[in-house]
Amino acid sequence: MGSSEDPASEKPVTAPAADVEAESSSTVRVQSIVRKWKREDLLKKGSLVLRGLALVFSLLSFIIMASNKHGDWKNFDRYEEYRYLVAIAILSSLYTMFQVFVQLHQLSTGKELGLAPRTYGLINFFGDQIVAYLLISAASTAVPRTNQMREGADNSFTDSSAASISMAFFAFFALAVSAMLSGFKLSTQTYI
Amino acid sequence: MGSSEDPASEKPVTAPAADVEAESSSTVRVQSIVRKWKREDLLKKGSLVLRGLALVFSLLSFIIMASNKHGDWKNFDRYEEYRYLVAIAILSSLYTMFQVFVQLHQLSTGKELGLAPRTYGLINFFGDQIVAYLLISAASTAVPRTNQMREGADNSFTDSSAASISMAFFAFFALAVSAMLSGFKLSTQTYI
Repeated sequence: MGSSEDPASEKPVTAPAADVEAESSSTVRVQSIVRKWKREDLLKKGSLVLRGLALVFSLLSFIIMASNKHGDWKNFDRYEEYRYLVAIAILSSLYTMFQVFVQLHQLSTGKELGLAPRTYGLINFFGDQIVAYLLISAASTAVPRTNQMREGADNSFTDSSAASISMAFFAFFALAVSAMLSGFKLSTQTYI
Repeated sequence: MGSSEDPASEKPVTAPAADVEAESSSTVRVQSIVRKWKREDLLKKGSLVLRGLALVFSLLSFIIMASNKHGDWKNFDRYEEYRYLVAIAILSSLYTMFQVFVQLHQLSTGKELGLAPRTYGLINFFGDQIVAYLLISAASTAVPRTNQMREGADNSFTDSSAASISMAFFAFFALAVSAMLSGFKLSTQTYI
C-alpha cells in the first residue's frame, strides 16, 4: 500500500507488489487458521482436563461422605444436608464420567458423536452449568451444619465431612471454569 | 428447479427461471436478516426483563431479611447464614441495577457503551453467572437453619426468613436464565 501512495516510485511495479501483498495476506490467513486450530485444540484439552478434575473431586467427595459412618450421631445419613451432598456428588460423578468418556472416545477414534457440533456445544454448556449450580448449592448447604458441630467437638466425623465438602467445592470450581470455556467455545464457533 | 428437470419443457425459459431464483434467494436472505434482527431484539428485551426480575427479587430478599428483627434470638444478624444472604442480596441488587441501568440507557439513547460488543457480551456472561452462583450458594446455605427453627416454632421471624430465601431463589432463577441467554447471544454473534 505504501509504495502506491509514493509519487516518486510510479513505475510499473504494481504486479510484484500485488504478488507480495497476496502472499503476505495468504500467510496471514494461514497463520490465523493455525492459531484457530491451536486455540480449538487447547480448548478441547482444557475442557477434558477440567472435567477429569471435576470427576476426580466429585468421586472423592462422594466416597468420603458415603464412608463417613462412625455410629450413633456420627452417621452422615442422619443429616439431610449430607444426604443432599452425597446425591449431588453421585450425579456430578455420573455426568462428568459421561462427558470424559465421550471426549476420550472422540480423541481416540476421531469420530464425532452423532450430533451437530452446535447442539453438542449447547448440551455441554447447559450441562456443565446446571451441575455446577447443584454442586455449589449442596456444598454451601452442608457448611453451616459442619461448622456448628465443630464448635462442640472436632473428631473424625466432622473432619471427613469438611473434607467431602471441600472436594465438592473443588469439583464446582472445575465445572464452573469448564462451563465458561464451553460458553467461550460456543462464541468462537463458525456456522457456514 | 423442477421445470429444468422436465424434458418436455426444454424451451429457453432459463432466463426468467434464473430471475425468479435470484429474486427468491434475495427474499430468503432478507427474511433471514429480519429474523436475525427480531431474534436479537427478543434476546435484548428478554435479558432486560430477566435482569429486571432479578433486581426486584434480590431487593425484596434483602429488604425482607434486613427488616427481620424481632428481638432476642429472632434477629437475623445473630445467624451467619442470614448475614451471608443479606450480603449477597445487596451485591446482586447492585449488579442487576447497574446492568438494567446500562441496558435502559442503551435502549433510550441508542448509544452503545464504550466497549466492543464482544467484551460487553463476555462481561455479561461472566457477571450473570458469578452472581447466580453466589445467589444459589447463599439461598441454599440459609435453608437448613430455617427448616430447623420451623420444627420448633413457626413465627413471623421464620416466615420472613423463608420469604427472603424464596426471593433469593427466584432472583437466582432469573439470573441463571439470563446467563444462559448471554451464552446464547455470545454464540450467535458474528465477527467480521
